[in-house]
Amino acid sequence: MRLSPDEARERLVTARVARLATVSADGQPHLVPVTFAAGGDAVYIAIDHKPKSTTRLKRLANIAANPRVALLADHYADDWTQLWWARADGRAIVRTDPADTRAPIALLAARYPQYQATPPTGPVIAITVTAWTGWSYT
Amino acid sequence: MRLSPDEARERLVTARVARLATVSADGQPHLVPVTFAAGGDAVYIAIDHKPKSTTRLKRLANIAANPRVALLADHYADDWTQLWWARADGRAIVRTDPADTRAPIALLAARYPQYQATPPTGPVIAITVTAWTGWSYT
Repeated sequence: MRLSPDEARERLVTARVARLATVSADGQPHLVPVTFAAGGDAVYIAIDHKPKSTTRLKRLANIAANPRVALLADHYADDWTQLWWARADGRAIVRTDPADTRAPIALLAARYPQYQATPPTGPVIAITVTAWTGWSYT
Repeated sequence: MRLSPDEARERLVTARVARLATVSADGQPHLVPVTFAAGGDAVYIAIDHKPKSTTRLKRLANIAANPRVALLADHYADDWTQLWWARADGRAIVRTDPADTRAPIALLAARYPQYQATPPTGPVIAITVTAWTGWSYT
């Protein structure tokens, strides 16, 4: 059954991993697993190390060409009555100014001890979520 | 480190769940978790029930507009030395003729007992994989 936007949001933002879909200028989707942190209707994803240019990583080049993205968390079990998924659709921008990445990186560090030990130094993908959707078998 | 195409393929096709990314005509990526079965360089995804039209489901409408898709399997653990992911990029078509869906549905039923009990009756998404890529921490 369909989840309410609030329940979809709750399931997604408490997941430890999600998958980020971006789209290249010529319409090829790109998928990578990501760690992330949410604040309100924004979701933040860090780049661990500063790429030589902000368009070197495919996900960053794609966002520069097309800001539309999707983020998915899901639970799989061989018992399909336990299945669920939650998705955020939105628009992404890439923040590179340290003044704009400090707060998102603090949110990420609060969720992942690895980021406390070694804060990410690259740009941050900031997604403004326009729709939270989800489904659960039960 | 990067996985070889063979290793990426092996990790992806043995995963129980993957996430399918498609792209709408206006460039919005769409993401859903999927069960799937592979045969050679093809990957098959069933639709459980026949939609009223083959374009009713977003993933099918997207494939009709843009055949480029991506499929991702990944493993997450709070110990990041255990992380890995594997991705297939390719082009999809939607098979609706029962003569063309029988073999893929048999492959799916061999992997998932639920499909033996209740074979999917809808169309089958057939992806011709053009690139197998992947990454593993170790």
